[in-house]
Amino acid sequence: MGQIITLTTDFGQSDYDAGVLSGVIWRIAPEARVIDLSHEIPRHAVLQASLLLGRCTPYFPYGTIHVVVVDPGVGTERRGLAARLGGQWFVGPDNGLLTQMWQRARAEQLPVEIVHLTNPRYWLESVSAIFHGRDIFAPVAAHLAAGLPLSELGPPVSDPILIHIPQPERSSTGWRGTILHVDAFGNLSTNLERRHFPSSRSVEIRLAEARIRGLVPTFGEGQPGEPVALFDSSGMLSICVVNGNAAARLGVQIGDPLEVHFGE
Amino acid sequence: MGQIITLTTDFGQSDYDAGVLSGVIWRIAPEARVIDLSHEIPRHAVLQASLLLGRCTPYFPYGTIHVVVVDPGVGTERRGLAARLGGQWFVGPDNGLLTQMWQRARAEQLPVEIVHLTNPRYWLESVSAIFHGRDIFAPVAAHLAAGLPLSELGPPVSDPILIHIPQPERSSTGWRGTILHVDAFGNLSTNLERRHFPSSRSVEIRLAEARIRGLVPTFGEGQPGEPVALFDSSGMLSICVVNGNAAARLGVQIGDPLEVHFGE
Amino acid sequence: MGQIITLTTDFGQSDYDAGVLSGVIWRIAPEARVIDLSHEIPRHAVLQASLLLGRCTPYFPYGTIHVVVVDPGVGTERRGLAARLGGQWFVGPDNGLLTQMWQRARAEQLPVEIVHLTNPRYWLESVSAIFHGRDIFAPVAAHLAAGLPLSELGPPVSDPILIHIPQPERSSTGWRGTILHVDAFGNLSTNLERRHFPSSRSVEIRLAEARIRGLVPTFGEGQPGEPVALFDSSGMLSICVVNGNAAARLGVQIGDPLEVHFGE
Repeated sequence: MGQIITLTTDFGQSDYDAGVLSGVIWRIAPEARVIDLSHEIPRHAVLQASLLLGRCTPYFPYGTIHVVVVDPGVGTERRGLAARLGGQWFVGPDNGLLTQMWQRARAEQLPVEIVHLTNPRYWLESVSAIFHGRDIFAPVAAHLAAGLPLSELGPPVSDPILIHIPQPERSSTGWRGTILHVDAFGNLSTNLERRHFPSSRSVEIRLAEARIRGLVPTFGEGQPGEPVALFDSSGMLSICVVNGNAAARLGVQIGDPLEVHFGE
Repeated sequence: MGQIITLTTDFGQSDYDAGVLSGVIWRIAPEARVIDLSHEIPRHAVLQASLLLGRCTPYFPYGTIHVVVVDPGVGTERRGLAARLGGQWFVGPDNGLLTQMWQRARAEQLPVEIVHLTNPRYWLESVSAIFHGRDIFAPVAAHLAAGLPLSELGPPVSDPILIHIPQPERSSTGWRGTILHVDAFGNLSTNLERRHFPSSRSVEIRLAEARIRGLVPTFGEGQPGEPVALFDSSGMLSICVVNGNAAARLGVQIGDPLEVHFGE
Repeated sequence: MGQIITLTTDFGQSDYDAGVLSGVIWRIAPEARVIDLSHEIPRHAVLQASLLLGRCTPYFPYGTIHVVVVDPGVGTERRGLAARLGGQWFVGPDNGLLTQMWQRARAEQLPVEIVHLTNPRYWLESVSAIFHGRDIFAPVAAHLAAGLPLSELGPPVSDPILIHIPQPERSSTGWRGTILHVDAFGNLSTNLERRHFPSSRSVEIRLAEARIRGLVPTFGEGQPGEPVALFDSSGMLSICVVNGNAAARLGVQIGDPLEVHFGE
């Protein structure tokens, strides 16, 4: 079977931008399999797209190529990149989208190779100033799918732009963390992981007006309307309201702080 | 060509949950073809997902595998199921999602085989408490697509949970029916079918404040803004407002009653 | 690899209508590759769908089949069509959807062949009055993908319905144009193209209360909140508000006029 190419954009689905990418790819790599990860990333939300990739890419087969077009700087001097990050490939603008993929590959000491897209031979003939997804990133991904080595696309890059992803900080009684993501149901994902929680200690989580005692294993626990804390499907501490919307209920948004206090 | 796997969820498309399923499937069954039926099922709407499957699955090729993740009970003791229901396969939680597929297979005396997913050999290595779609159902579907027999997945089940789908009741002058579904345009689908309407009798339909005389063959008939009754593309009696939204106009929702009165 | 079939509809994605089309296609043409261009066309927006096709289809491989179901007249006497328009194929209702594809093929003197879908041999056995997408257009597209010649589907058509797409008009000082499209970000696309703008002349664009001096190459130019004018990714003059919504900001909608005045 052909190489897999995934698409992640902030284009929405009511217009032609998302659909045209497959056409461009198939003219170059007729065997490629193209799948939408999401076209509903909030506009220009580079952090959210980076987190989505960080969560998705470990589940894809070796060699999958991820085209990511969340590109507030299109038409400016920002670079376009293609990268191998461990067993996954990335194509998109140099604005931090690859941060989580890059961090993981580095942490696992996997091969990392990044190039600056400068060779127009692998782009569409006419490149618009405002749609590099169609004119540069999709064709580059298709050429990679067809077997082109990264090094043909342009010179190596050693300093990709990385976004700051807030890290938990120790406090006298536990941790200070940050809300990193709010999903479509209003569930709040944090930057705290299972490893931050010693299993022998009781815990209270403070977030806005909420005081949450203890962790539950799953949504099903707790009273409807009550905020609960649990480890989500990526192993991150998550705050949810049973049958409700935690973000709306607590008035919390991305970037807001939370505190974890350990007892005996 | 590879087996077809369809995906139906209530995940929405702004997050990573829908997209990750394809990655999981392709790592196990690289040849499979994966298609989204819908990721926009209203949250936890088991009845709506069951009706969607009931309407869609007859149009798919023999052997299609339908992964359905509308799963309010994830992480509780509810079972996971895989099933052959006639010529279509089902993988998902045991909460009634397969009701319509099961009823049809039984009515047509087709083979029915259901198993309880207990064999972790065919799951991801690490199973989260809250995302069985990714960790159990998607990999199980992929193993089925790759040729695994159902019986490998776990012991047989003879008592799948079936949801109550209200049936029409006779009245002295016709039928009492129920609104089963409201589509994105506000069209109201009922549990009455063409066979409930003797062709020789005149008919009046009463629904909320509306009194609709006679049936029309298609949307084009009737005045804009007027409610009309017709048989929809699945052969069910449907109430629509020409160029309008019947649900909003009539203040009607799923579960509401309607009456059918026959005249001479 | 199998033929590519694209789907463009106004069905939305919360219901079964969009998903069922793939099933119908694969029962007839198991090798076909099916991709969604958009299921989020505003309801009955024939012009918008026609423009989307006009923008997308040039990027697809030769022989791609585009199924387009934006069909306010379904069930009336309107014809169903299949067409070859240059290197792309079209299947859908005869209501103007193919206008831009047809105009381009004619302008480029490419082969044009259109037939009226009258041969029920290539439809589903049972045809509903209100879902020709499932019962006629999808199966016809699948038969084309499987190699059937157009002429088998019905008699030739020489007078497809074409919609009026407003053309720019000369004024004493420049052009009078029209807003043709508003995208999901509120960007306004017009019927003026790069060729209408002599490079040596200064320009002022008047639209509602806005007076925009000069063109910018990309979104990045201009102050946040300011309206700017630029050529979009299809080469059309577009009015945008940096980090904002031009349609909302200026109170403008599809069909509204704009004026272009040239200076020295």
